[in-house]
Amino acid sequence: DTNFDPTEHPHRRLNPMTGDWVLVSPHRAKRPWQGQSEAVDNKQNASYDAECYLCATNTRINGEVNPDYKNTFVFENDFAALKEDVPTFGTDDPLFTMQVEKGRSRVICFSEDHSKTLPELSLSELEAVVNTWQQQTLELGQEYQWVQVFENKGAIMGCSNPHPHGQVWAQAHLPTLAMRKRENFAAYFEKYGNSLLSDYVQKELNLKERIVCENDDWLVVVPYWAAWPFETLLLPKFSISSLTELNEANRKTMADIIRQITIRYDNLFNTSFPYSMGWHGAPFDQKAHSEWTLHAHFFPPLLRSATVKKFMVGYEMMAESQRDLTPEQAAQRLRDVSAVHYKESQH
Amino acid sequence: DTNFDPTEHPHRRLNPMTGDWVLVSPHRAKRPWQGQSEAVDNKQNASYDAECYLCATNTRINGEVNPDYKNTFVFENDFAALKEDVPTFGTDDPLFTMQVEKGRSRVICFSEDHSKTLPELSLSELEAVVNTWQQQTLELGQEYQWVQVFENKGAIMGCSNPHPHGQVWAQAHLPTLAMRKRENFAAYFEKYGNSLLSDYVQKELNLKERIVCENDDWLVVVPYWAAWPFETLLLPKFSISSLTELNEANRKTMADIIRQITIRYDNLFNTSFPYSMGWHGAPFDQKAHSEWTLHAHFFPPLLRSATVKKFMVGYEMMAESQRDLTPEQAAQRLRDVSAVHYKESQH
Ligand SMILES: O=P(O)(O)O[C@H]1O[C@H](CO)[C@@H](O)[C@H](O)[C@H]1O
Ligand SMILES: O=P(O)(O)O[C@H]1O[C@H](CO)[C@@H](O)[C@H](O)[C@H]1O
Repeated sequence: DTNFDPTEHPHRRLNPMTGDWVLVSPHRAKRPWQGQSEAVDNKQNASYDAECYLCATNTRINGEVNPDYKNTFVFENDFAALKEDVPTFGTDDPLFTMQVEKGRSRVICFSEDHSKTLPELSLSELEAVVNTWQQQTLELGQEYQWVQVFENKGAIMGCSNPHPHGQVWAQAHLPTLAMRKRENFAAYFEKYGNSLLSDYVQKELNLKERIVCENDDWLVVVPYWAAWPFETLLLPKFSISSLTELNEANRKTMADIIRQITIRYDNLFNTSFPYSMGWHGAPFDQKAHSEWTLHAHFFPPLLRSATVKKFMVGYEMMAESQRDLTPEQAAQRLRDVSAVHYKESQH
Repeated sequence: DTNFDPTEHPHRRLNPMTGDWVLVSPHRAKRPWQGQSEAVDNKQNASYDAECYLCATNTRINGEVNPDYKNTFVFENDFAALKEDVPTFGTDDPLFTMQVEKGRSRVICFSEDHSKTLPELSLSELEAVVNTWQQQTLELGQEYQWVQVFENKGAIMGCSNPHPHGQVWAQAHLPTLAMRKRENFAAYFEKYGNSLLSDYVQKELNLKERIVCENDDWLVVVPYWAAWPFETLLLPKFSISSLTELNEANRKTMADIIRQITIRYDNLFNTSFPYSMGWHGAPFDQKAHSEWTLHAHFFPPLLRSATVKKFMVGYEMMAESQRDLTPEQAAQRLRDVSAVHYKESQH
């Protein structure tokens, strides 16, 4: 039927990595918003905060003193969700299935400068972050099957400290989403003889409808199946399955692409743009992973402005995600903003 | 290993309905919270608000005038996410799979009294709500495979109006979570010859570790695999697969159990407790569904107090849900509060 208009007619799209569908209801963006507003905190922080447990030379809650670090600094989370030391135990009643989980949770400070965020770092400072992500993944991948590098940015994303930082959690078992991806990547590889995401990169490069930004090595798209309003997927243009495989040139271009996408995010609503981001590389299980292409997700909650977010509640929790603009519209909006950070252009 | 202590050692539990695991890190509850606080609005609303588009006799944004209703009132959502009128269309490129979706979105006012919430309604008023849920499901189930009855309660859950109301969305295809449940219920039935959830009810009635409240027909537990801190599952003690099968006696006991659980929720932090709740009955596909037991989920976001919620971000978005207290601890807390609403006991 040629009457179908994706910007008018409710439809569902399939995320081939997870098997989740998303309901796209773009006409819904027209409804007025009378609900909760988020607080925006656009004040400029100082470069050093005596109260911050992540600033260099400060003492943390457990009495440890942070070194006088430059660029990045990694330490074991003082309230780790995963621990190295756990007894063995497990059940397998089909209704009461559990397994003990062994792992590590670490905090990664991105910069000694309390006032900065990723898009405000220089390219060489960003390279140091990329390098730390890679080093942590190398180290933890020796002992654990799954290494999850991520960043929660902004109070609205549960981030309890504005000091630029992320985390890395490593664990013995594959977590649920990694498990689903492994299955779907393997099934696609079996059927088409290629990595699902590298095929996807080729198609998006041809279609050019959902591209936000790119450089020689990397591409950022609003994926066809995006659930969050301005969700993006960062993909390589070359063959790579894990952060551990990055060479120096790749690290430089990765620093550049992270800068590009996070600047565009900040410019969308002229605010420090909140999100959760994270890397998904192949599991560390001593097997080859030609089916798996390294990629990162950015899941940002904002919908209409710096203060109005998308609530994933009710229908979303009971049925499936629902979105109020098409991925193509979101990509267009992110392409249309300036490539120069709004704080820079105010000078 | 007898050294395993679920309140100390990180472990994972499997949700047999969805296939999702949850990481339980109970020792983590000890960390101090320095992050975002939610606004609490404990002011008493008036019974009628001239500005409210859900109050009786008021005019809605599209010019329609609400009738002078008592108890419940149902109307088509003025900004429906699903519509009846859509052209036929679909693709099946494995990386760009989509399908047009046909459906309905309606709003269900629970009471003409703007100031009330479910736990503050009388039993007979609650029966009217249950009755409306059933009638809507009967009607929409004639045309659509899936009928999703749900309520978003509280500003923190994206609810834009305090007037007591829920929604019902109906659609042609099974949404993602319904699809997963259908698969897992069918596989369990195939293997054990019984409904997964009716077996689960029996085991929980025997174990008595996770029960929050019950009556002759219904049981509320914090499920073994709960993801949200105080998540609960409402289950029948008798064989029933859909809201459409409720008889008068079941509706009365359902009104009672909804009252019990929502009163306990409000009493936990002495606040009008936010949540998303929803019913999952068997799909309407002309088939028998002995594998499917009717049930409701309550997904409440609060963790420590009326102002501190659990953020499902970062690790949760990239890997799997993580919780900071055991389901057994949560059930105990909900059992320990009074069965009388805190506003009542203040009189
Ligand atoms: O329909 P409402 O109440 O305006 O909107 C709310 O519920 C919907 C269904 O759960 C969600 O999709 C929206 O994000 C939320 O804000
Ligand atoms: O570790 P943090 O930053 O204190 O905590 C934050 O990130 C964690 C990992 O994504 C989440 O489990 C918490 O809910 C969130 O508040």
